[in-house]
This record gives sequence, structure tokens and C-alpha cells, in this order.
Amino acid sequence: MTIDLKINADRLNKTLHDTCTAWGQGTRWGTASTETGMKRLALSPEDGEVRRWLVAEAKKLGCEVTIDAMGNIFCVLAGRNAGTPTMMGSHLDTVPTGGRYDGILGVQAGLEVLRSIKDAGYIPNYPVGLVDWTNEEGARFPFSMVSSGVWAGEVDLERAYALADVHDKTKTISSCLDDIGFKGETECSYKAMPFKAHFELHIEQGPILEAAKQKVGIVQGVQAYNWFTVTVSGRPQHTGTTPFAARADSMLASARFIAKAHEIASAHDGLVSTGIFGVEPGAVNVLPETTQFSIDMRHVEDDELALIEAETWACLDKIVAATPGLSYTKEPIIRSPAVKFNQTCIDCVTKAAETAVGADLCRPMTSGAGHDSCYTSLRCPTTMIFVPSKGGISHNPVEYTSPEDCAIGAQVLLGAVVDFDSRRSD
Amino acid sequence: MTIDLKINADRLNKTLHDTCTAWGQGTRWGTASTETGMKRLALSPEDGEVRRWLVAEAKKLGCEVTIDAMGNIFCVLAGRNAGTPTMMGSHLDTVPTGGRYDGILGVQAGLEVLRSIKDAGYIPNYPVGLVDWTNEEGARFPFSMVSSGVWAGEVDLERAYALADVHDKTKTISSCLDDIGFKGETECSYKAMPFKAHFELHIEQGPILEAAKQKVGIVQGVQAYNWFTVTVSGRPQHTGTTPFAARADSMLASARFIAKAHEIASAHDGLVSTGIFGVEPGAVNVLPETTQFSIDMRHVEDDELALIEAETWACLDKIVAATPGLSYTKEPIIRSPAVKFNQTCIDCVTKAAETAVGADLCRPMTSGAGHDSCYTSLRCPTTMIFVPSKGGISHNPVEYTSPEDCAIGAQVLLGAVVDFDSRRSD
Repeated sequence: MTIDLKINADRLNKTLHDTCTAWGQGTRWGTASTETGMKRLALSPEDGEVRRWLVAEAKKLGCEVTIDAMGNIFCVLAGRNAGTPTMMGSHLDTVPTGGRYDGILGVQAGLEVLRSIKDAGYIPNYPVGLVDWTNEEGARFPFSMVSSGVWAGEVDLERAYALADVHDKTKTISSCLDDIGFKGETECSYKAMPFKAHFELHIEQGPILEAAKQKVGIVQGVQAYNWFTVTVSGRPQHTGTTPFAARADSMLASARFIAKAHEIASAHDGLVSTGIFGVEPGAVNVLPETTQFSIDMRHVEDDELALIEAETWACLDKIVAATPGLSYTKEPIIRSPAVKFNQTCIDCVTKAAETAVGADLCRPMTSGAGHDSCYTSLRCPTTMIFVPSKGGISHNPVEYTSPEDCAIGAQVLLGAVVDFDSRRSD
Repeated sequence: MTIDLKINADRLNKTLHDTCTAWGQGTRWGTASTETGMKRLALSPEDGEVRRWLVAEAKKLGCEVTIDAMGNIFCVLAGRNAGTPTMMGSHLDTVPTGGRYDGILGVQAGLEVLRSIKDAGYIPNYPVGLVDWTNEEGARFPFSMVSSGVWAGEVDLERAYALADVHDKTKTISSCLDDIGFKGETECSYKAMPFKAHFELHIEQGPILEAAKQKVGIVQGVQAYNWFTVTVSGRPQHTGTTPFAARADSMLASARFIAKAHEIASAHDGLVSTGIFGVEPGAVNVLPETTQFSIDMRHVEDDELALIEAETWACLDKIVAATPGLSYTKEPIIRSPAVKFNQTCIDCVTKAAETAVGADLCRPMTSGAGHDSCYTSLRCPTTMIFVPSKGGISHNPVEYTSPEDCAIGAQVLLGAVVDFDSRRSD
């Protein structure tokens, strides 16, 4: 049987932008009505409004809507057979200076898939649904992907509930779920709300597809990353009276280390980055007694990341040992192993993408960032679909993916989900 | 005529420590009564107390005491002939977490020289005096050496008066001079209060004498220094999704630059240092959009400093040009040319130092830091005498110069001043 289902590109883009304009519009960067960023923090009043809208739209389609204890919203359309739903999902929350596509596209495309299926009178083999995950960004409550983490059994519910608003310690996830009326009665768990699969359409948030002039990233997995806080200690000496040979200069040692760490990561085809850097005491004519900075190391393969890490610390050992009076400490922040997505899901996306744009415009990719799909992949077959980000820019008001590319992504999502569903015979 | 005047080492050290303990004692670092740092901010009540004590002690010796409009205190002992005084001077103020020697030793040694001359019944050829300069540190009112600057005609009095306390903007140099009763009626000027010469004993504030096991630094001048604020701008990209080739990483560029600038300064036998470093926005998974940091370049010779500066900016030009999307700006903070001290003064110090400890324990040196002697050198023959700083540490409670070394410094100061005076025939 050949199925020729099409999403409605105009409806998808109009719905995406109308809801962005209505609930959580952020900084304006252009003159068109759609040319603003987003500030839709998790469980804010604006997030509450868009959630209520989503529930209403899903119900119009005949979906069964379930809200779990973390406020995750599951909208499931019945199939010809009862069974565990094939799910699409992403998130409607944004960072404070975010754009209109990160997360939002994945949810709106999932809704468009459900609408298109319904419009075509197509009844899937088994139930097909959409999930909006709460607080994926971790921007308001500082724990990214926390709700898919609870769902997957990897994060404790009470710990998640206790997370406080970074700007108002009197508010927690628990109190804000109550405030907007989205603390559901269903247990937040893959056992209470099992998935047959999870497909997530997302913007790339990087420059690779654009540079390659390709349209669809078929995501094979998510790279591993390890984050650390490094503190280098030296002596707070006078910059005028202290010869180089007598210095224990934590700033110089840190600068040399950051430059060398880049070379090490390059040699392994991995990444290393420093986003936070501070010094104490901080005066023009006093060498810093201490520097403190972040190190973010990434690689597609856990083994290679381990090599990068070992070489990086060996390099810092050597730099510090070369100067009497210098020392350092490193504190792990997080360790996230590599994620490998499910081959059947990848096959479904590959077929749908090649059908939509041809093989030349498709590219196997590894996600550089974490997503809710990392947690779902622990509990069900999962993969992701990437579409191009203009200039590779994300978490920024000017984040942009063209209407055409949004539509391609939604069409691939539709194709993959219907293909996955059609292969099922539980 | 051979003069065999000796300072009283016990009296010098007792006076230094008793006054430090009485007025402005800071953080304790050891168990002995003298083992504390100092917090004697310029024009604070403690500074007022020690100033009143100094005036009283000088008057006991028969000195004529003059206070000028900046609160500089001049204590002059008459000679056999009337004339412009040969002066010794330094400062009694400290940084908030300072030690007992920086500045204080120079004033107390000057007083000890006057006491010793008086005790010996020695009457100099021409007047000999001592000056305590106001706010040398620039720690409370942020302009180092401001009062010798006004005296030299290089800093405007009204600008100096308007300088506000860094922690209390309602207080200025002018209001605080009034508060402690040290706004004198004499004009602050080398014209109203001319010097025949200025000799300053100071701790080295660096590790060179200690490392060389020498006792006296015969200071030839002060190195030149140029300070800048550098801002490197790039793109605030995602650390996980942005390949190295697509980054405009201001942090990496800055780290490479700081490491390279060190190499450039080393090759010229100069210094370069970064004491302030900050990034924006500052998140583990976002490359800094901007870094901002200080660059402090120094060299004994102006020409060499100019070469270091040219090569340093050429290096930054190259680093920034290598990555599309990077740019930088540099703002000068201060440019201070090299100072060359007076040869006659240097000869007097050399003779006195070689007499005191022998030529092997003396060393010609260049001061790495600025001192009031930089300003006096513009208006009268000037030089400085350095004594060792334990571990090269200064501007720190544990700053330490042994009682023996303090006494050697005072003895060299005495010898140099008496020699200079004896050579005079105005």
C-alpha cells in the first residue's frame, strides 16, 4: 500500500507564528510580524496559555489528552488497533532570549501531522500521538530535559518538583505547575504512559546543513559531553615588579591550557569550549591569584571523549607542573554519555526524507546538543529529524528556519511516523 | 672630612612597628606582635593619627613643619646654610590589605635619619627634610601618586580634590583633608616647596634582591608601562552544535593572544600581564560573545616598549583576522614613559650602599612599579633605594622585610643624603 499523505505547509507556518505572536513574543529583530524572538519560560503564564490552546486543538481532532504529574501533555489519536502510541514530541518552552523554532517547531509539526492525518481520513494502524515536554530548556528551572528525565525514571520526581525559579526562589516547578493548572494526575513515568517510539523534529542549532546546502539531518544519536569547573591557583603578584621567572601566573597558565585543549580536541575531531571565565582579585597591576572557568568537552563516541579528557588533564598537569606555585582543581558538573538512536526509527526517517527531498539533500548527523529524545531513547525506539538553522544560530531572537524548511521537516516527520506505524504488527 | 653617622636600628624598627600597631593594624598572619598587615587608607582617621604623631616627632627634633594643600607633610631640619632642602620621602598610607613596609619604611627611615643627625649633633651643610606624600597608593582615591603629581604640576589640584572614595562617593580628597585637619595653607607645588633632591627608600616589592642574595638595590629609574582594556567580540554560539570551523570564539582567540603576548614580551626582556578578565554572557554551553581584559605592558626602555606594543597588536590583528566574525577594540588606560633617575643621586646612593654592605651585596635595578619619585624626578634630582621583600610579596599582609634589612636601607639613605648635602655649595 502506498500512502500519499501531505502536511499543509501554510497551516503549519501560520499556526506556529500565530501562537508565537500570541503567547511569549520576545525581542523584535525585523519588520515582519513573524520577525521577533520568544520569551516563553517554562510554566510561565504564557506557557500556560499556549498549553491550554494545544489541549483544545488536540481535543478538536478527537485526541485523548493526558497530563502527567510533571505537566507533560500527551495528545493521542486512536488507531485501527488499540496499543501503545507512536509518539512525536518536543517542547513549547524557550530560553529568555530565544527564537520561534527551537522546540516549538517540533510540537507544531506534530500537531500538523495529526491534523493532516485527520483531514485525509487516514486511520493509523495503532495510536499516534504528540507530547509537549515541560521545561526542556532548563532556563527557568535549571535542569534541562527534566520532565522527560522523570518520565524515563532517570530523575526523581521530588527533586524535579523542588527545582526553584532561577530569579525567584519562592517559586518551584511544583508550585508553578499548580499556578497554571498543569499538575496532572497521571504518574510521570514511561510505565504509566508508555511509547512505542518517539520521533522529534528539531532545528539543527548549528551550521552544518546550511553550509552543505542540505535540507534534512537524519540524526543517528547525540554526542557525549562532560562538563567541568576548573580552578587554577597561583600568586597575586605585582605585574610591574615580578619577573616572568618568579611568577605563578594563573591567567597565563589558563590561557595556554585553553589554547592547547582546543588542539587536543581538534586532533580527535571532538569539541572543547570555555563559556565561563573569571579571575580574582581582578586588578590591572595584580596577577590573578585564581582563575575559574568551565570546560565543555564533546565527542560522538564515548571512547574518544575519554581520550580527549585524559589528554586534556595531562596537558593541564604539565602546564601547572612547569611553574612552581601553580596548582589546580577540577569539579565535574555533568557527564552525559553518547546516545545511539534506534535503527528502525532511523530507517523510517531516511525513507521519508529521501522521498521528500531526495537522498542528496539528506545527511546522517549526530546531535551536538541534548534533547528530550536522549531520555526517551532509554525507554523506547527514538530518533530525531533536523532542519537547517540560518547561520547556525539558536537560543537567540534571530534564530530562523524558513517556512519551506519547516514544512519539509513536518513532512518527513509525517512520513516517518506513518511508515513506523505501518510496519507495526504488535 | 669623614663623617661616621649611624642610624639606630632598634629605634627605627620599634618606631615603625609601634606606629603600625597603633594606627591601622590589619590582618594578623603570625603570632608576634609585629606580624600583622596594615589597613591605613589615605586620609582615614588612622592616617590622621599617624600624621599627627609624625608632625609632633618632627617638631621635637626642631623641624619646621609645613602642610600643603594636598596634605603633604614637609619636615625640614635647618642646615648651616639657608637653602632649598635635600628631601627624603615616601608615604604612610597603605592598600586595604597591605603590609607594614610599603611606603611606611621610607617615611620612618627618613625620620630615623633626622633623629640620628640630631642625636649626633651633626648640622648639615644645607637643610635636610622628610616628606610624607598623601594617597600614594590610590587605593581609597583611585589615582596613584596623585599628591606628588600635584606638587610636580602634572595633576590639577581641583581634579585631585574631586577624587571620590571608591566605597563612599560622598567623600572626596578635599572633604577628607578637611575631616582630618590636614588641608594646609601652603600651595601644593614644587615652586612653593622646592627640593634640592628627593631620595626614597622603598621595599623592592619583587623577588630579585632576595633571589640574588643581595641587600641594596640602587635604582636607576622606573620602567615604562602602558595599560589597555581589550574587548574581543565574536558570536555567542552553542558549544555542542557549532563545529570549530564555524565558530567565532572570542575566548579561544583571547587565550591564544595572551599566551602569544607573553612570548613577545619575553623576547624583548619586557613584561606583559593580564589581571582582569571577564566574559559575556557566561554560560557553560554558550561561547562568549565578548571577552574583556586588561593588558599591562612594561619595559625599562620606551623604545623597546613601543616594539612590544607594536608586535602585540600585530599578533592580535593576525589572530582575529584568521577567524571570520571576530573583531577587537583596545582602549588605552594609561601610558607612563620610562623614568631615568639623576646620576649624582645614584652616585651618592652607590657610595653609601657600598660603604654599608660592600659592592657585592648591591645591585643596580630598575623599579617595576611607579612611586612618588617618578613625579619628583621631573622637578629635582631624584633616586631610590630598594631593600629586599621576602618572597617578592607586597600589597599583602604578609609583606615582610627583616629588621636588619630595614636598618641597612635607612643607613644607606642617611649616607646618601649626607653625601649629597656635603657636595653642595649652592
